[in-house]
Amino acid sequence: MSFNTYGRLFRVTTWGESHGPAIGCVIDGCPPRIPLSEADIQPYLDARRPGTSRFVTQRREPDRVRILSGVFEGLTTGTPISLMIDNMDQRSKDYSEIKDRYRPGHADYTYDAKYGHRDYRGGGRSSARETATRVAAGAIARKIIDGVTVRGAVISIGDQDIDRDRWDWNSVTDNPLWCPDPVAAKDWERYLDSIRKDGNSVGAIVEVQADDVPPGWGSPVYAKLDTELAAGLMSINAVKGVEIGDGFAAGRAKGTYNADEMRLDDDGRIMFLANHSGGILGGISNGNTIVARLAIKPTSSMLTPTRSVNAKGEEVDVSTRGRHDPCVGIRAVPVAEAMLACTLADAFLMHRAQIGAN
Amino acid sequence: MSFNTYGRLFRVTTWGESHGPAIGCVIDGCPPRIPLSEADIQPYLDARRPGTSRFVTQRREPDRVRILSGVFEGLTTGTPISLMIDNMDQRSKDYSEIKDRYRPGHADYTYDAKYGHRDYRGGGRSSARETATRVAAGAIARKIIDGVTVRGAVISIGDQDIDRDRWDWNSVTDNPLWCPDPVAAKDWERYLDSIRKDGNSVGAIVEVQADDVPPGWGSPVYAKLDTELAAGLMSINAVKGVEIGDGFAAGRAKGTYNADEMRLDDDGRIMFLANHSGGILGGISNGNTIVARLAIKPTSSMLTPTRSVNAKGEEVDVSTRGRHDPCVGIRAVPVAEAMLACTLADAFLMHRAQIGAN
Amino acid sequence: MSFNTYGRLFRVTTWGESHGPAIGCVIDGCPPRIPLSEADIQPYLDARRPGTSRFVTQRREPDRVRILSGVFEGLTTGTPISLMIDNMDQRSKDYSEIKDRYRPGHADYTYDAKYGHRDYRGGGRSSARETATRVAAGAIARKIIDGVTVRGAVISIGDQDIDRDRWDWNSVTDNPLWCPDPVAAKDWERYLDSIRKDGNSVGAIVEVQADDVPPGWGSPVYAKLDTELAAGLMSINAVKGVEIGDGFAAGRAKGTYNADEMRLDDDGRIMFLANHSGGILGGISNGNTIVARLAIKPTSSMLTPTRSVNAKGEEVDVSTRGRHDPCVGIRAVPVAEAMLACTLADAFLMHRAQIGAN
Amino acid sequence: MSFNTYGRLFRVTTWGESHGPAIGCVIDGCPPRIPLSEADIQPYLDARRPGTSRFVTQRREPDRVRILSGVFEGLTTGTPISLMIDNMDQRSKDYSEIKDRYRPGHADYTYDAKYGHRDYRGGGRSSARETATRVAAGAIARKIIDGVTVRGAVISIGDQDIDRDRWDWNSVTDNPLWCPDPVAAKDWERYLDSIRKDGNSVGAIVEVQADDVPPGWGSPVYAKLDTELAAGLMSINAVKGVEIGDGFAAGRAKGTYNADEMRLDDDGRIMFLANHSGGILGGISNGNTIVARLAIKPTSSMLTPTRSVNAKGEEVDVSTRGRHDPCVGIRAVPVAEAMLACTLADAFLMHRAQIGAN
Repeated sequence: MSFNTYGRLFRVTTWGESHGPAIGCVIDGCPPRIPLSEADIQPYLDARRPGTSRFVTQRREPDRVRILSGVFEGLTTGTPISLMIDNMDQRSKDYSEIKDRYRPGHADYTYDAKYGHRDYRGGGRSSARETATRVAAGAIARKIIDGVTVRGAVISIGDQDIDRDRWDWNSVTDNPLWCPDPVAAKDWERYLDSIRKDGNSVGAIVEVQADDVPPGWGSPVYAKLDTELAAGLMSINAVKGVEIGDGFAAGRAKGTYNADEMRLDDDGRIMFLANHSGGILGGISNGNTIVARLAIKPTSSMLTPTRSVNAKGEEVDVSTRGRHDPCVGIRAVPVAEAMLACTLADAFLMHRAQIGAN
Repeated sequence: MSFNTYGRLFRVTTWGESHGPAIGCVIDGCPPRIPLSEADIQPYLDARRPGTSRFVTQRREPDRVRILSGVFEGLTTGTPISLMIDNMDQRSKDYSEIKDRYRPGHADYTYDAKYGHRDYRGGGRSSARETATRVAAGAIARKIIDGVTVRGAVISIGDQDIDRDRWDWNSVTDNPLWCPDPVAAKDWERYLDSIRKDGNSVGAIVEVQADDVPPGWGSPVYAKLDTELAAGLMSINAVKGVEIGDGFAAGRAKGTYNADEMRLDDDGRIMFLANHSGGILGGISNGNTIVARLAIKPTSSMLTPTRSVNAKGEEVDVSTRGRHDPCVGIRAVPVAEAMLACTLADAFLMHRAQIGAN
Repeated sequence: MSFNTYGRLFRVTTWGESHGPAIGCVIDGCPPRIPLSEADIQPYLDARRPGTSRFVTQRREPDRVRILSGVFEGLTTGTPISLMIDNMDQRSKDYSEIKDRYRPGHADYTYDAKYGHRDYRGGGRSSARETATRVAAGAIARKIIDGVTVRGAVISIGDQDIDRDRWDWNSVTDNPLWCPDPVAAKDWERYLDSIRKDGNSVGAIVEVQADDVPPGWGSPVYAKLDTELAAGLMSINAVKGVEIGDGFAAGRAKGTYNADEMRLDDDGRIMFLANHSGGILGGISNGNTIVARLAIKPTSSMLTPTRSVNAKGEEVDVSTRGRHDPCVGIRAVPVAEAMLACTLADAFLMHRAQIGAN
Repeated sequence: MSFNTYGRLFRVTTWGESHGPAIGCVIDGCPPRIPLSEADIQPYLDARRPGTSRFVTQRREPDRVRILSGVFEGLTTGTPISLMIDNMDQRSKDYSEIKDRYRPGHADYTYDAKYGHRDYRGGGRSSARETATRVAAGAIARKIIDGVTVRGAVISIGDQDIDRDRWDWNSVTDNPLWCPDPVAAKDWERYLDSIRKDGNSVGAIVEVQADDVPPGWGSPVYAKLDTELAAGLMSINAVKGVEIGDGFAAGRAKGTYNADEMRLDDDGRIMFLANHSGGILGGISNGNTIVARLAIKPTSSMLTPTRSVNAKGEEVDVSTRGRHDPCVGIRAVPVAEAMLACTLADAFLMHRAQIGAN
């Protein structure tokens, strides 16, 4: 038993296991009369899809999304939008290996401890496969906050950072690692090859941004924009940290440096001379670019054997056979973008309820 | 308009402004027959109370809590518990200074942008004063998760770190800075004095831990234990980052290092050989110590003038008069403990609903 | 433990027991910049107040409401509004009589069965006293749906009905029984006197109406306007039935009679030729007058002894001493009005979120 | 945009339109390790299925349910259960007739007034077809409250009542009208034939009961068992009234009659000498049979023409072609049973959270 709904007014409820017949989500709260078709969603699923490069898992499936309700004659009706993606790659294989063995760093043991019964095939419900439905929901959220630009990139892999001076959004789509720094992208490929050759894995840090969010979105004090966003990002598999703006660096900074001073631009509009706050003050957007980062731990699915225990209470060793994913963080970018988009769509709808003219 | 309730089954709704007649909260969802009196709550409020050292704001008030409902003959009844704390220190002073001036780094501008009307006295609703009600609620949460130990400490102030090898929980209560490292505590006092003398401020990083949490608490996939905790901690004023276990360091680590391998102890019980995950796997507690950290930005309330704008759309300079708080992060420890306790109480009640014997 | 919050966006959380120090509620979700003071709320509390006639309980207290937060300089700020009413009439008297005896028809036994511990003084949490806080919240809800008229009346007491042809809203305030039929009002007084003389009690039926609700309010399929209203009205103490429009009569009618046919008025606007539906179709308001009725059972607090059982598991007889309330339904009118007003305010805010211009 | 989720811990989110590709629901909150397969659900869908007699709509489809997630190796896993039913009977026919015409008594006009865009085919989202997913969810709810018996019957059609002295649960399944009175069942068939011959329709009243509900279920004061049930039943299409126990009759009764007096049975257990309260006191179950009734209005879809207006703002006449449903209330029985079962499952899980041993 669990809570599988994200959002307050733009509510996304996801369902499905890695190797069940399908996965999907129900989106309740999408306003009416928004043009929507599978073609608006599919590109984001394709970007997330596995098997696109030698650096990500080779599970090959089209991830074709179907809209089952909530859209009529090309427009949303304001009723629940049901999205479904069939699981193609569920050839019955031998799971006896992982059936009883708790993979360290995975949810195998804790799901068993909680539920006493779990679908162990491919991680079941705790599989990253669930995130495909988030990406689909995010595509719809983007249409609600039309005018806001949501995008993301990988800013470090293991100990390899980008050079922010070389940041180029075009680079992100030009390389398989979502890297905004064309030079680092090349180094990273070599680095990841060595990691994989060692049968090891590495973590990564992803940054997402939203431009042109107007001031005033966010609901203090327990539904702050940054609070909701922190929850949304932390709910992504393998994420262990979230920060807004300068984040942990702000925890080491001085006030004179960290204050985002304000002035008027030539048109007399308020402008901020810096954006250490990541576009959020007191839980409410200030008109600046929303900036958030998330840390994704390295997967424990490695060729290197790790010590573990099985369901029978025996000590065993666990190691992944064949190909593996050297850096699961790479695939977190479209998912993090989706959570940011969903969080903003929810805040936007809340804002309308709060401040709409009486 | 805003969402001021935290929690799903253990629900804390807070209310009140810094300079209104009182602040308080309503706790809905506390189980019946739990011994409870003001004496169980007051010590935590006293620990948080301002004016306890030269390092924190000198607002002097007793913060005396009153239980107005939900307790009868010393036991909770299962009905809402209403807690109230009168605001004593609300002498009407001249606010013309800050009335129209947007303090950089504060919520003044965003609240105005959102609501068009705000109680500017002492920060109104966005004042840290609201956190007193969280601390009160946390004291009750602790009684629900009887057996679990929740505690916290400041692990860095500005660029000054503790030496974890000197970690001593007793030290935390022996110094005014919640510092677990007795040596660092002394250095910090000198450091903070210099910061204040410069009219500047610094950020801080706080760590909270929970011992003896049984395996199985937490509700995937959008009410994960770490997800709820991230939201709870990020909702605290001035927090810009949250991490669980190794957090951002995990984003730079290798899988062979990060995997929390498992073995059996002498009694045949499952034990983890490390705790990089901070006691949470797949959003569910694994029996290990829960570990979380939060980054608190330095306050922009400084003697040093900062450039800003006022409500009339004029450029102005803003600076704090008289004494100020060199490091607001210090006072975040009892608040962060409270949010951890509330999150665990909520997860515990959820778990009972989920897994209670049919 | 219990859910004490009503509403989704206009959320009212009530707290307090009949003989505790105070009762109150926190209203989260009130939009900003609405003029509000105690003077807007007090008249509704005065109308509900006990002791106003010989037909209602003689508990004498002023029920003076205080606004503790959420209002600044006469305008709402969009933050939680905390309302408190002190309990004056709590002279410690001898409760040994009712302490262990389960009054038939009351919540004494079920609260004990559930919680194992209850505040038995005056019914504690299950006392009608809780409804005072609903009336206070309703007064604020009315200001949000400015332009909508919410009012109610008692349409029958026991087997005594009004003559709807004599319906006069002015009559409702001209007699102590909230009766819209001036002739029936007189008969009812005689009838109630005889009921009280017999030491008996009677039920009543209340009707509430809302005029000028625009079409489109309500959220299908589980937050329909009539669904939310049914919940709100059924949550009032002693209510055993709720109906919308023709209600149960519609369950006995034919389609040719029940259809609310539509035509255009002289200005070409849609009008309905009847209102059997009570202003709601498919869970959404149709622009017609919202009409709802609720049935309130007779109180079991009578001079006539009733057979019961006590907490020790012994058979006992229970009877009320001294004065008693012959018809608790009389006092349900302002409470039912309040629930209707809160339901409409919630639906209005939801509608803004749903349909507000993108 | 709308709220399509019912329940707090046992949460059912439904989706789908009458003539879309499919309908379905996601059940979040089902405990783990409950044996479940399509075979547990299908019988309830078959009982509700249209086309089973000459008295109900002839839409012929198998309504075959598929479990897409949440069940593994025959047991629930505690993760979301996704149920889907394909719409077979969606032959594209000419809808120009109803496309723009607002059928009186239906949601056509109000959906248009709210959303400005609707799937008009067969009523779209407001079609009774949505209730199939409720029946499927109810089948799962029954397994959670194993030991509780939930059943219902039609107790009146138009002005034709049953004789309660002839009540026989076996009769309910022996006739196509869910009538517990074998004699009335025969009369009703003749009555309905005449109604249909007149091209008219009639309303009905349904009663649902739950036996063996233990004392203590229900969460005062806004999540009372009767409050939640009233909302669940009122959310069913065409329902205009809901009552618990004696309901509206209690509003006309005297206290001496209405009090459910208590005594001890031979085993010293508390028993009630009557059940006017319908098994609920103060919003909490008292151990007696839960009894609720709902009034279903007659459908406005008749051969008899009714005056209406179209989307272009012109006056038109509307009438149903070919066969029609003389009494839609007949098919409400399995739906009402399902809502009662879901409400009880939710209350049971809440109760575990509230009162489970610490």
